[in-house]
Amino acid sequence: MSLDTSLGVIELTEAICNIESVSGNEKALADAIEAALRSAAHLEVIRDGDAVVAKTNLGRDRRVVIAGHIDTVPVADNLPVSRRVIDGAEVLWGRGTVDMKAGVAVQLKLAVETAEPNVDVTWVFYDHEEVEASLDGLGRIARNRPDLLGASFAVLCEPSSAQVEGGCNGTMRVEVRTRGVKAHSARPWMGENAVHKAGQILTLLSQNQPDEVEVDGLVYRESLNAVLISGGIATNVIPDETVITVNYRFAPSKSEAEAFEYLKNFFAGFEVELKDAAAGARPGLDLPEAAAFVAATGSTAKPKYGWTDVARFSALGIPAVNFGPGDPNKAHADDENVPLEQITSAYESLRKWLNA
Amino acid sequence: MSLDTSLGVIELTEAICNIESVSGNEKALADAIEAALRSAAHLEVIRDGDAVVAKTNLGRDRRVVIAGHIDTVPVADNLPVSRRVIDGAEVLWGRGTVDMKAGVAVQLKLAVETAEPNVDVTWVFYDHEEVEASLDGLGRIARNRPDLLGASFAVLCEPSSAQVEGGCNGTMRVEVRTRGVKAHSARPWMGENAVHKAGQILTLLSQNQPDEVEVDGLVYRESLNAVLISGGIATNVIPDETVITVNYRFAPSKSEAEAFEYLKNFFAGFEVELKDAAAGARPGLDLPEAAAFVAATGSTAKPKYGWTDVARFSALGIPAVNFGPGDPNKAHADDENVPLEQITSAYESLRKWLNA
Repeated sequence: MSLDTSLGVIELTEAICNIESVSGNEKALADAIEAALRSAAHLEVIRDGDAVVAKTNLGRDRRVVIAGHIDTVPVADNLPVSRRVIDGAEVLWGRGTVDMKAGVAVQLKLAVETAEPNVDVTWVFYDHEEVEASLDGLGRIARNRPDLLGASFAVLCEPSSAQVEGGCNGTMRVEVRTRGVKAHSARPWMGENAVHKAGQILTLLSQNQPDEVEVDGLVYRESLNAVLISGGIATNVIPDETVITVNYRFAPSKSEAEAFEYLKNFFAGFEVELKDAAAGARPGLDLPEAAAFVAATGSTAKPKYGWTDVARFSALGIPAVNFGPGDPNKAHADDENVPLEQITSAYESLRKWLNA
Repeated sequence: MSLDTSLGVIELTEAICNIESVSGNEKALADAIEAALRSAAHLEVIRDGDAVVAKTNLGRDRRVVIAGHIDTVPVADNLPVSRRVIDGAEVLWGRGTVDMKAGVAVQLKLAVETAEPNVDVTWVFYDHEEVEASLDGLGRIARNRPDLLGASFAVLCEPSSAQVEGGCNGTMRVEVRTRGVKAHSARPWMGENAVHKAGQILTLLSQNQPDEVEVDGLVYRESLNAVLISGGIATNVIPDETVITVNYRFAPSKSEAEAFEYLKNFFAGFEVELKDAAAGARPGLDLPEAAAFVAATGSTAKPKYGWTDVARFSALGIPAVNFGPGDPNKAHADDENVPLEQITSAYESLRKWLNA
């Protein structure tokens, strides 16, 4: 399979979507992207597993990273993609159109076309973003070849309706536990019902009013939700344990330690066990590179709520923003679709910025 | 394997316990019981699957059924049985000692020894009591050979500390559901958390004070407990459903329909789905046969909380009581054990009653 980057960016998006690349199955798409990049004489191309990195080496005084993942969540009977009209707007409909192959198409077309950008650019196309964090291709490059990510600014082409979404909330998962004493359910007074006790936890959660926290001029909405609950072992036994998995999305001004402290206080009196966490990323829009990007793309900057790989750049000390076509609320949806206009708009904005 | 009914009732209990008969594996024990019963000339023996029925046919004006199940719950490293001293009392320790092979030993020894009881007796030894109700051997006999269960009174040798426990509570399981709307947990305000809503249900349950209901002179303690809870599909998705399985143990004066009506009112505003139910059994201690049995055995009658097969007799219009060695709280326990004194006492009481 090969990709023709002389196609329009919408047609290129269609072609990229139709090379199925559910996490773990990125090879064919990575091969096609690598071949397209190698066709451009101005790029130095490095392959790492199923990630492909392409660099200009023009000796510019600044370098930016423009990155996107090439994998998708599983297909839901929505490939190949099709063109449809939804609410009067022409869209490209199908898996990956939003998250995030329209962004990948914008990257790939610009990488090949832009021989003389006004900054040196490192284009990154990476694998395994949609699965457990330890497999993430960008994380692997950051560990193995941190030199490849050296830059003064980064753009992640994650869906953000072709507007700048700055930073991201952090995310933390904890298990909150109640314990009781098993007994036969015909004689429950011999035991102690751990599921009944969980009512207090759920009441706390349902009455909670999450904070809104201003960070670098953007307001981050936090949230705290039970995402899983389980308790009980049989229909005739009083349960001796309930486990509630809680997901806390916290503002990027908080550290992981502060977030965990908050949860321990919030669930005071119950066992709280930390399962995993990832700090957020400050939007950094007060930094000159980021402010210039917002201005060049004519964006109204908004906060990003979902955790994205901008946090990896943030951890490397590189300011980063999300900027890509597609409504993030449609990511992973069975009816995932992107307005054609957003693909063109994102492409034009980035092109102007690189050629200004 | 064979069983020697000339042994003392304690030794016979040991022998019966050591023929493992976890539900579905009753054949060896049923064979041994059948052989022992066939050795007694005064008994007519009928085999039905792994159930064995033995009848005297003396032309007495009354007939009683004395019944017990021969299966156990799974072994928990507690076979073969052993003799121990617990809290100063000699006990037989191991799987089945309480539920209910000491009772089976009492039945078997008396069946073979009592050639001329003062009533005709139908001895029933049946399979599959510890598993789903549809497999229950007593239920199978009631369906296939109801004539075998014809009687004016029944004794079920379920553990009741060698005292009469009358009737039993009914039991009903319902699923109570909350529903919400899925969303990515980074943007929970796009959805509606069904687990948080379940807090109201658990609060209702934990604040509930169950009724105590007097039926035929005995006070039945009801109970209402969540036995299972589950909700959520992934750690980054707002749950759109929670299912709470609730077990209601209701007094034998209530019908299944009344019990379900009670639950629908109790959980008003939530979906309540009936999963299964079994009516209880009134103690019937005001009936002459039952009163005579209480008197003959010198018992203090108490209510039975757990559902037992006395309800099957009750449904056939036959008054029935539980009377057997062992503390019902030790049934199914890993440290299941029966005081030797209760085995002897139950044996002596029944022997006196049959020979009065």
